Amino acid sequence: MKKGYWLWHYGDYELFHIMSLHLRREERGYIRPAVWKLQGPYMNVKFVRRIECEKGYLFCHINGGGNISVNNKRYPSDTYITLEKGAYEVEIHISNNIGLPAIYIESDVCDCDGKWLCNHFAGEFTAAAYKSCFDSLDKNPEVFPFAYERKEPVGVRKTDEGTLYDFGTELFAYLNIANADKDKRIELYYGESEEEALDTAYSYITDCVCGKTEYKLRQRAFRYVYIIADADGMQVSADYEYLPFTEKGCFSCDNKLFERICAVAKYTFHLNCREGFLDGIKRDRWVWSGDAYQSARINRYLFADKEIEQRTLIGLVGREPVEQHINTIVDYSLLWFITLYEHYMTYGDKEFLRKIYPMAVKLMEFCEGRINADGFIEGVPGDWTFIDWSEIDKVGAVCAEQMLLIKAYSVMAEFAEILKLGESDYAEKSRKLKKLVNEYYWNEEKGAFIDSYSSGRKNVTRHANIFAVMYDIADEKQKQSILENVLKNESVTKITTPYFEGYELDALAKLGELSAVERTVADYWGGMLDLGATTVWEEYNPDQNGAEHYGMYGDKYGKSLCHAWGAGPIYLFGRYYLGVYATSAGYDTFMVEPKLGGLKQISGKVPVGDGTVSVELDEKQLKVTSTKAGGTLKWNGKEYELKLNETVVIEV
Amino acid sequence: MKKGYWLWHYGDYELFHIMSLHLRREERGYIRPAVWKLQGPYMNVKFVRRIECEKGYLFCHINGGGNISVNNKRYPSDTYITLEKGAYEVEIHISNNIGLPAIYIESDVCDCDGKWLCNHFAGEFTAAAYKSCFDSLDKNPEVFPFAYERKEPVGVRKTDEGTLYDFGTELFAYLNIANADKDKRIELYYGESEEEALDTAYSYITDCVCGKTEYKLRQRAFRYVYIIADADGMQVSADYEYLPFTEKGCFSCDNKLFERICAVAKYTFHLNCREGFLDGIKRDRWVWSGDAYQSARINRYLFADKEIEQRTLIGLVGREPVEQHINTIVDYSLLWFITLYEHYMTYGDKEFLRKIYPMAVKLMEFCEGRINADGFIEGVPGDWTFIDWSEIDKVGAVCAEQMLLIKAYSVMAEFAEILKLGESDYAEKSRKLKKLVNEYYWNEEKGAFIDSYSSGRKNVTRHANIFAVMYDIADEKQKQSILENVLKNESVTKITTPYFEGYELDALAKLGELSAVERTVADYWGGMLDLGATTVWEEYNPDQNGAEHYGMYGDKYGKSLCHAWGAGPIYLFGRYYLGVYATSAGYDTFMVEPKLGGLKQISGKVPVGDGTVSVELDEKQLKVTSTKAGGTLKWNGKEYELKLNETVVIEV
Repeated sequence: MKKGYWLWHYGDYELFHIMSLHLRREERGYIRPAVWKLQGPYMNVKFVRRIECEKGYLFCHINGGGNISVNNKRYPSDTYITLEKGAYEVEIHISNNIGLPAIYIESDVCDCDGKWLCNHFAGEFTAAAYKSCFDSLDKNPEVFPFAYERKEPVGVRKTDEGTLYDFGTELFAYLNIANADKDKRIELYYGESEEEALDTAYSYITDCVCGKTEYKLRQRAFRYVYIIADADGMQVSADYEYLPFTEKGCFSCDNKLFERICAVAKYTFHLNCREGFLDGIKRDRWVWSGDAYQSARINRYLFADKEIEQRTLIGLVGREPVEQHINTIVDYSLLWFITLYEHYMTYGDKEFLRKIYPMAVKLMEFCEGRINADGFIEGVPGDWTFIDWSEIDKVGAVCAEQMLLIKAYSVMAEFAEILKLGESDYAEKSRKLKKLVNEYYWNEEKGAFIDSYSSGRKNVTRHANIFAVMYDIADEKQKQSILENVLKNESVTKITTPYFEGYELDALAKLGELSAVERTVADYWGGMLDLGATTVWEEYNPDQNGAEHYGMYGDKYGKSLCHAWGAGPIYLFGRYYLGVYATSAGYDTFMVEPKLGGLKQISGKVPVGDGTVSVELDEKQLKVTSTKAGGTLKWNGKEYELKLNETVVIEV
Repeated sequence: MKKGYWLWHYGDYELFHIMSLHLRREERGYIRPAVWKLQGPYMNVKFVRRIECEKGYLFCHINGGGNISVNNKRYPSDTYITLEKGAYEVEIHISNNIGLPAIYIESDVCDCDGKWLCNHFAGEFTAAAYKSCFDSLDKNPEVFPFAYERKEPVGVRKTDEGTLYDFGTELFAYLNIANADKDKRIELYYGESEEEALDTAYSYITDCVCGKTEYKLRQRAFRYVYIIADADGMQVSADYEYLPFTEKGCFSCDNKLFERICAVAKYTFHLNCREGFLDGIKRDRWVWSGDAYQSARINRYLFADKEIEQRTLIGLVGREPVEQHINTIVDYSLLWFITLYEHYMTYGDKEFLRKIYPMAVKLMEFCEGRINADGFIEGVPGDWTFIDWSEIDKVGAVCAEQMLLIKAYSVMAEFAEILKLGESDYAEKSRKLKKLVNEYYWNEEKGAFIDSYSSGRKNVTRHANIFAVMYDIADEKQKQSILENVLKNESVTKITTPYFEGYELDALAKLGELSAVERTVADYWGGMLDLGATTVWEEYNPDQNGAEHYGMYGDKYGKSLCHAWGAGPIYLFGRYYLGVYATSAGYDTFMVEPKLGGLKQISGKVPVGDGTVSVELDEKQLKVTSTKAGGTLKWNGKEYELKLNETVVIEV
């Protein structure tokens, strides 16, 4: 039977698409390539396979240049090669310096999948990579397989000079124009906000076309398009480009605001799920490791799409040599390890872990090259100590980075154990660093970790303390002290980004402070919705007014109004209200600890491996069902085994 | 005053062009990409410069995507930016994933050259690279600057089916066809030999075109083209593509055969001088390090073009990570170090040495990873122990490789000293290895070095012994023993490639055996000329007949008939007859030791740094003039200072 797949070198597909994405950001008529070192796929790849068969055929199409050698006789691409009964050594040499080096292999007598081996004309041979969706010649993996949906504007408004089209909500789409006058020039001003589209001198993305009657413009992020054209009668539509995910998780409750927030968060997040996890679909349209950490957590309670997490992890870490921090950011290198760990716990994909582990080692070696004389990781010139858009005392080694390194070391120790690589010294390094951090950064007087030990300022911010709680670096006494002295302390500068708000709420929820969580979600996310947001913003400051909300980085429309890191409530409700989390890799075992918090009724589903847990809870009854074994329900201090497909009902 | 240059990241120009070259080899309708890992330029580059100026302008064209930021205001490519009197921080971000990332900068108020700094969005900032030939917007360095010359066929012969065009000598050229019938298909069969062009089922390079009346086909190597077309009246010509070198060195003598050999060698060599040193212009059309070592030696007595050597050295060593031997060949990695050393001695370009030295260290680290328990370098599976197309006992660690490593260590020690990098242990490693080699490989009974110590066969070939003489690893007594027992010993398998014949003649000449040199040149090179060669072949075996000479690698026309490594006599006559060689870097000091050998009269020129040495010698008189100071003439055991532009005349 005929079988056919596209094959490529492991990692090339991800690196090609993430790299291409990073070269596509557009702004005021020019390209803004990502501001870190970019890496693409290998330039040449060798595929090999021994075939023993009855009479049949082998067909190979090469995406690039190259040749197919069968028992040392060479053929060009696209040859149907007849194989008589016998044994054949097949070697396919390909090169592609502008696209994705890949081949389409089809045969009626041999497997056309990962049983082929390949290398990059160096290194060990490994199984060729393939994906079941690329199973025919016309489905070239160089073209990322998005889905499309036609969208029409929901509002059209004429102004003195032009026409404003409103698509009702943010889109990432190709704009189509039909019925244009080919002799007339058409100016286009895109906007995430109406103000941006109409403010033609400042709109972030603009275009100008002429010479045709129909256009399909390049894909862009917008809700509004303001078009100035001399001619009437044009038709404007958009082809929305997206990943056709299945919603495996969901949450509903009696609080209608929370439901609206979840819907907006879900749409925001979905728009940003592309080749990898984007930060924002207008700006920067890049893959940032810290943002991706949040996105991966959200993904696991919504789409549970393993592939996008792996594309993101591969695209971020790249290949040797490691010459800089991921995205140049110290904390983003460290969060990569933690993302990988939580990824493994969720999906249990040991093969992926095995493949990416060597790069984890290289990245950790790079990080360790940044350890100062006192034993702490510290940025050097060219490194960016980000943590958050907030006033943090960043003199010398910064506490929040140490928290992340403690956790990163400990997950590296687990990886080494999972992969049975023998003793590693990562666990010991984690322990030692934790001790040092307590010594240098814990301030008994303030009852908190301070930002910097070398500035002498003993400044306390929420950030390091939040990480200390999230990753159990603080002991129980310290956690309570942090709760009182930092998290509940109004005099400690508030978080302004949904990014770190996500972490703060995680820490609060972990400490059982659900009422604080609900208050913040209602105020902070609710505040954006009150201002008409149909997607979550990059940052929200309630003290700002009107179009002030759209500015950032000194740019009138510099703020992203559709930023993935704002989708945190999806994670929070799934993790702490439905209360589902893995306790061993791939949800082999897991816990369900539902909590109502201040709500009257909650219900929803959480994907757990190849199954789903359904939870319904109100003030009278709790019902939990799992379509996967291995779960334990915890309620009121008691534990119940969740048997496959059997509903546990508890009167509360 | 307006100034303008193209700028790029150091190394990118070379890597881009050498990589492109390695993807261009054509054979029977398919591409044969090089069989080692290929590397291209960086994908994104950041250029920075501070400008303080009076009123003026700055213009930047980006080859790729990107933007120009002037005091944080961004502009698209091709903007004329007006600068008022003041100070400006300029930052240009560019990306190019399909070509050479480069910018053209023009200004009337600032330098547009290496005073700009750049990095690849990682690593230190270094001076931007530029070349004086790329000094206007239309001279894009992505297009390699070849020269062109129209060539007409010198012979046209009709056959029953088609027409054979003979261009008189091998070319690398675009074939032009004019006056074609656009409805008729045209089949083309190229040949280095007439036999190949006419043997349509087996010709190496073929093409088939239709649909136009004029064609300019892609550039290819050929002397003959056999064209089968239904139509008459077509006009065929070729656009010869070449580097417009100046001949800085020359040699003539009373032996007319030698003069013809030199002319053929010169043309062969010139055809193979392209983006880098090619092995052959039809096959493989790749840059091989061992071939390039020979080519560099020849170049220094002919064109003395520093640039092609540097492009070759950069293209071969690539960038981190070093994952395999250069061209996958153990000896080719080691010859790279020696090529670099001789390059430095010739041109004295310390800046180049400084830039490439870090990669030399990485390559040496890689080689040292291949050292076996006995202390010898040894290939592992995937490595190719080439040495020569000859029967060498390659069991375990092979002697010839150790000879190269001894020399490679010693040149690394010199590099470290030249660059004042403090103590290195390379010199010590060289000494130790030499001692070990004498212990394991020197066979007193055979009076020679044996190939392998581990096979037990004690096989002697010429190769290791030749290297031992060339690099003074053998002591004087060993050298005489090698001369008698190996080089003059007819029972030791003869060399069949001009590649190793070049080394053998170097060793013989060094030992003063000029009559042997002359005999071999006359027999071996003369033998090819007798068979009608207009360029030197890859291999010559006088025992073969007719079209047998064209076959190699199991392919009827697999042998390259225009192979650079056959141009060795140019080096030999310059080095040992005119007798000119550098004794310190860049020919700061040099020696002139003319020798007539068995000839009656010789004369010629050798480039020495920015000067030239002219030598005339016959049986009565020696005349030597140098246009560069620093030379010493050695004649009959006496030394004479060569004063600038003063001719030394000695009656002999």
